[in-house]
Order: sequence, then structure tokens, then C-alpha cells
Amino acid sequence: MQNISCDRKRMEDKIVTFSKFGDTGKGGVTRLALSEADLQARAEFFRRMKTVGAEILTDDMANVYATFKGTEDLPHIAMGSHCDSVVQGGNYDGILGVLTAMEVAETIVTEKIPHRHPITVMIWTNEEGARFDPAMMSSGVITGKFDKTKMLASKDIDGITFKDALDASGYKGDEKNRMNAKDYKAFLELHIEQGPVLEAAKMDIGVVEGVVGMVNYEFQFIGQAGHAGTVPQKMRRDALLAASEAIQYLHRELDKLDDKLVYTTGRIVCSPNVHTIIPDDVKFTLDARHQDPEVVKQVVEVIRRIPSELAKCKVSYKELWSRKTVSYNNEFVDYVEKNANLYGYSNMRMYSGPGHDAQFVADMVPTTMIFVPSIGGNSHCEIEKTELDDCLKGANVLLQTLLDIDKK
Amino acid sequence: MQNISCDRKRMEDKIVTFSKFGDTGKGGVTRLALSEADLQARAEFFRRMKTVGAEILTDDMANVYATFKGTEDLPHIAMGSHCDSVVQGGNYDGILGVLTAMEVAETIVTEKIPHRHPITVMIWTNEEGARFDPAMMSSGVITGKFDKTKMLASKDIDGITFKDALDASGYKGDEKNRMNAKDYKAFLELHIEQGPVLEAAKMDIGVVEGVVGMVNYEFQFIGQAGHAGTVPQKMRRDALLAASEAIQYLHRELDKLDDKLVYTTGRIVCSPNVHTIIPDDVKFTLDARHQDPEVVKQVVEVIRRIPSELAKCKVSYKELWSRKTVSYNNEFVDYVEKNANLYGYSNMRMYSGPGHDAQFVADMVPTTMIFVPSIGGNSHCEIEKTELDDCLKGANVLLQTLLDIDKK
Repeated sequence: MQNISCDRKRMEDKIVTFSKFGDTGKGGVTRLALSEADLQARAEFFRRMKTVGAEILTDDMANVYATFKGTEDLPHIAMGSHCDSVVQGGNYDGILGVLTAMEVAETIVTEKIPHRHPITVMIWTNEEGARFDPAMMSSGVITGKFDKTKMLASKDIDGITFKDALDASGYKGDEKNRMNAKDYKAFLELHIEQGPVLEAAKMDIGVVEGVVGMVNYEFQFIGQAGHAGTVPQKMRRDALLAASEAIQYLHRELDKLDDKLVYTTGRIVCSPNVHTIIPDDVKFTLDARHQDPEVVKQVVEVIRRIPSELAKCKVSYKELWSRKTVSYNNEFVDYVEKNANLYGYSNMRMYSGPGHDAQFVADMVPTTMIFVPSIGGNSHCEIEKTELDDCLKGANVLLQTLLDIDKK
Repeated sequence: MQNISCDRKRMEDKIVTFSKFGDTGKGGVTRLALSEADLQARAEFFRRMKTVGAEILTDDMANVYATFKGTEDLPHIAMGSHCDSVVQGGNYDGILGVLTAMEVAETIVTEKIPHRHPITVMIWTNEEGARFDPAMMSSGVITGKFDKTKMLASKDIDGITFKDALDASGYKGDEKNRMNAKDYKAFLELHIEQGPVLEAAKMDIGVVEGVVGMVNYEFQFIGQAGHAGTVPQKMRRDALLAASEAIQYLHRELDKLDDKLVYTTGRIVCSPNVHTIIPDDVKFTLDARHQDPEVVKQVVEVIRRIPSELAKCKVSYKELWSRKTVSYNNEFVDYVEKNANLYGYSNMRMYSGPGHDAQFVADMVPTTMIFVPSIGGNSHCEIEKTELDDCLKGANVLLQTLLDIDKK
């Protein structure tokens, strides 16, 4: 049997067209949430979705719902992602999840594929949090993770509040239009991997099982400042030496844990940070992620076992934040895997390291994600890229998974 | 025989009085070069030195020379230091070398101690370099280390040039008044140790043999940025991990060298320095000092032996600057030691880690230094302190050393 396929040319046209909204002229886009560029992308989305017969609503957070009626009175099956980017971001992060959802809907309409449930193509507002902190703001509000009043007060660097931007956007709708547990049966989000794993493993599709749990700690080392030329080595309490010993300790101990653990000491602050003064106060962060809460617990145990003194400096640490592992809907995950195999696409199960709107939605509506490869693992930069063929493969798996759910 | 002694009360009065010029109200002073506070200190110096009969000249860099005639037509014996401080500095660094030189001159005048050579009490301009970069500016100019034209163009943070400040100060004199090899027989500088060695060894006097040679290098580690949540540990090239391995390497190897070597990794810069991104560019500095050029050479060999790759990151380094070891006049060093013993003051020979005007002067005129203890090794901060008794002991050794040189 011939599998249904999305349209390669139509897919390419969408990628090219949407890359113009916020084009940096250097291969990427700056398309901050509710900016002019974002509004242009939304307008193009409205135009295209209306052309193929969608009825479009927005909710009070300007999340967009373009719905294609089903043949029965059933809850919606939704799919989509976000169309905002970071500053000097790429043409795939977020937007590809919107464009593939559009492509799936266009294919269903064009090919007259029957479906029982209403199908809704979505845009989530301000996923990146690059203009208004925090990230995943609007999925966070409608799933009760964030307080809406606080979110409305969030300001961009020019002092404009999210509320102002929302009111001015023309996309603020009614709270009753929000996705909710009663009216929605499923949510599917396709996203670029943002990492090098699929490419390195030569895989077409990442079958996403969930989002890894994480902890973020800050370590501090207190020593004694002193002149580089006067304090004998044996009398020193050098906070940077202590920090470097701690980094070595963490690598040594954390490398003994599960292979899939990822951890990063990404930020270091040294005081007074003068070449002729012994550092007396150094801080660095540790970000650690793993799908298994047991492994995350082991990470915390390693942190707790750090010596209270290193290089004669006082060692302390505190948790900055943490996130529990999110598991996607098992049945949907199986569908994604089955469908990748159905099309003959190589695939692997994996967890997402970064956060996505889907992880918040998963608490409210059965959800899963599909990953496509990122060339070089690049994301949040202008050279971010996914091959057109991989985009199309992702769209096909998304289409077939949606149709499987529709049958149930 | 009763040794001559300087006057404890007069010494104390000078310390208390000069602490008012630039008083921060928190125990220290901010007395930047040629600032209002510096000019107040200079005016007080002029007043006091004129009272005891000095003839005062300044040179083209506003260095001050207060001279007490000798009984013969011979070259000058000079002593002194600087009266500028860093921001929120202490009441002893630099100024104590001026105050003890004043005290020595006052004792000679008051006690009518005969001397063959003219005795000159000096203030060097802008030693700290805290207002106008570089440090030791004026001793550097008159000894030919620095280009005067460049120095005049040096700007403070308000954009005022050193030339402007010099012209406005009222202390700019004639180039012919500069200290020079022909007219000067000796230069003596008393200074606080700025380190914890004398205090820890319970020594009253540091017999300074010279200023240690130093090298300052910058290391750089180039890795690969990536998302903290997506790049598997084994695929990472983490520049901060590489830097921490390099710090460990340097400590391990440099600790094998001579005990008196001091070295410091004081400044680290990490890019992009975001907790969720693997660092791809880390730099840190290494400052290493030792009196023996052979040991400094061994340090450079350790640097050259650093692996070209650490944690899969590219390792490079470059010399930022270096300074050769300066040896003070052997005969003068012996006098200082003899005189400390003469008074029954415990003492030890040592090298200076920090730089001082005396190290530049040493290339032109026979020079030595006397160190007095710094409580807790503190300097360049408001809690910097030397006990009054130790100041007096230093002044007595300075006095006797000057008289020994005068006899020769």
C-alpha cells in the first residue's frame, strides 16, 4: 500500500515564506513574541489556514487555534508549536512545528482525508521567553503553571509589558477559547532536536518519550583575597583553585552515573577577577538533566557529598531551580514509532533536554512530540537548519499519528 | 651606647594627620594622584618640611624633593615613597614611606645630627596608577622606562589627561630638578610589606633584597558551544572543563618548583557564560613571580609543556607582560640588616612581590627598601594597618641606614 504523503514543494514554500518574517539578512530571524515580525507570521498563518477552510479563534493569551471540522461531535486533536524566536535565531526552532501542522492540515483538506475529530493547528505565544520572561509563558498560563497577572506585567527591555503588547497585537481573544481537558483529546508537537544526537546516529525521526527532569545548582567558594606577589603559596585560600577542584570532582563523580545524564557548568563568576589578586569568591552553576528521577536523585547525592572545604576555601551550594521529568502519552509515543517504521524512516526513542510547550500541555491533555534532526546540533543561532526531506518526513509521521488518534 | 631614635608621638601625629586627606569615613582613604586629597597631603608635606628648614623643588612630573643641606658639596641621599592611594585604600601603603622619611629628616634636624650629604625627602607622583594608568608612572618617566608624551595623554575615568591634572596641580616644576645619576648617591624607600610573611614569621623588619621577576600569561581554551540539555557528555568540548584541568595542571607542576615561587590565576572570563550553554571560550591569567630568573624560566617551561588539547578543547597561551628581577644595592641591604640587628629588631631578608618606584630608581641610583609588617597581610583596602611601633622601628632603621650611607 502507498502511504499518504505531505507535499514537498508546499512544505518548502512555507519554510521559505516564513523565513522572511524577521529575516536578519544573515540566514536567520529575529522574531520576538508579538513583535512586528511575529504579527506578520501570524497574518500569513491566518491567510493560509483560512484559504483551506479553517475557522480561527484566539484565546486571552493570543494563542491561535485554526480548526477544521470533523465528521462527528468529538473533542479536538491539536498540533502546533510557536512562531517566536530568540534574537538572531534560526528558521526552524518552533516555526517548523507550526508549518508541519499546517502542512498536515493542508494535506488532509487537499486529499480529502476523512477525519472524525475536529483538527486544530496551533500557535503558542511567547515560547522562547526571549522578549518576555519566562519561557513557555502562554502554555504555562492555560495549564495553571504560571499566574496570568504576573505574566501580564512581564516587561521587555524597552519597558513594554506583555499586557501592552497583547492588547496592541490584535490577537487577544477570549479565555473561553483556551485549550482545555474537556474539549481536547490530544496535542502533538513536532520540533527540531536542537542537539546532535539524531544526526550522529543517522536517524530521521526522534520518537520523544518525554522531557528530562533537571536540577540547577549554584556552588560558591569563599577564600581570602591577597596580592599575587606577596602571599606565599602555602598560606593561600584561592577560591578559583577551589572551584576548579570542584569542577573536577563533579565530572569525576557524575561520569560514574548513567550514560544518558547530561550536565553543564556553564556560568562562572570570579571576584575580584583581577590578574594580580587571589580570588576570594567564585561561583559556578551546575545544570544536570536525566529522564529517570532516580538518576537526578543520584546527582543531588553527588552534590551533597562535595567536601565542605576545598583548597582551604569554604564550599557551599544551593538549588536555583528544578524540573520533574515529564512523560508523554505511551500510546501516542508508540504511534510515532510505528509510523516512522511504516514510512521506512530510521528512528530512535529519546528524551527532550530542552523544555517545550508540550511538556506543560501534557499535564492537561494526552500529548507527544516528534523530533527531526538539527544539522550540527545547532539551534538558537542563524545557521540552525533541518534538511527539507527531514522536515517532510516529520510532517508525514505527524500526519499519520494524527490519523491514528482520530481512528481511536 | 644609646641608639638614636625617631619620635613616637611625632610619628603618630603624622599618620593621624595624613589619614584625613581623602578620608573615606570607613578607616581608609581615597587619595588618587593629583586629586584634591593628594594636593592637601602635598600642601601639608610642604608646610611641615619648610618648618624644619627644607628647600623644596618639584620636577616636570610633579615629583617633590625637600632637601636639607649637608656640610659638604656631595650628591644627595634621597628617601621617600608616594602619597597617592587606590580607591578605598589604606593609611599606610606609600604614605608611610613619605612619613617615615619626614620623621627621619625631622629627627636629624631636631637632634642636630651632622650629615655630609644633602638629604632629600621625596614624593613620587602617581605610583598606584589607580587614576592614570600605568603604575609607577613618574619614576618610570625619569628613569626612561616610560615615554613622557604617552604618559601625559593618559586619561582618568572622567577623561581628564595626566597633563591637565599636572598643569592644574601647581606642583609641576622643571625637568632639570629630576633625580639623576650624577646628583644622587642613594635612594631609600620604606614600604609596608602588603603581605602576611613578616607577621606570620613574627618579624619587625623585612630586609628587602630586590623585587621578584614575574611573568604574566593568558591561557585560552576553545571548545564548542551547545545546549546543556541536548549534547551527550561524550560529544562535548567544554572550555570551562578544559580551563579547570589547566588550573589543576599548573598547580601540580608549579608546586614542584621552588618554595618561594608565588603564582596566581586571578582572572577568568567564560563565554557565553550562560548556565544552559556549554562554554566554548574560556580565558584565564597566570601571574608568577620569583627572585631567581632560573625559577621564572622553569615556570615558562611548565607553561610550554601544557598539553595542546585538554577536554578535547584547543589550548593556547600568550605572554601579556614580564618583568626581570631587580636586585637592590648589596651594601645598602647589608646596612639595613645590620641596623635592624643594632636596634634589636627581629628581621628577615625577603624579596618584594609588588612593584615599587624603588625598582625603577634602582637602575639609575643605588637603592634599597625596608619593609614593615602588614597586619593580616592586608593592603589596598581600608583595614590596611601597620602597628605604630613597627612604623617607628622602620623609621629608626631608615635613619641609621641613611647615616651609614652618609659616612661612606
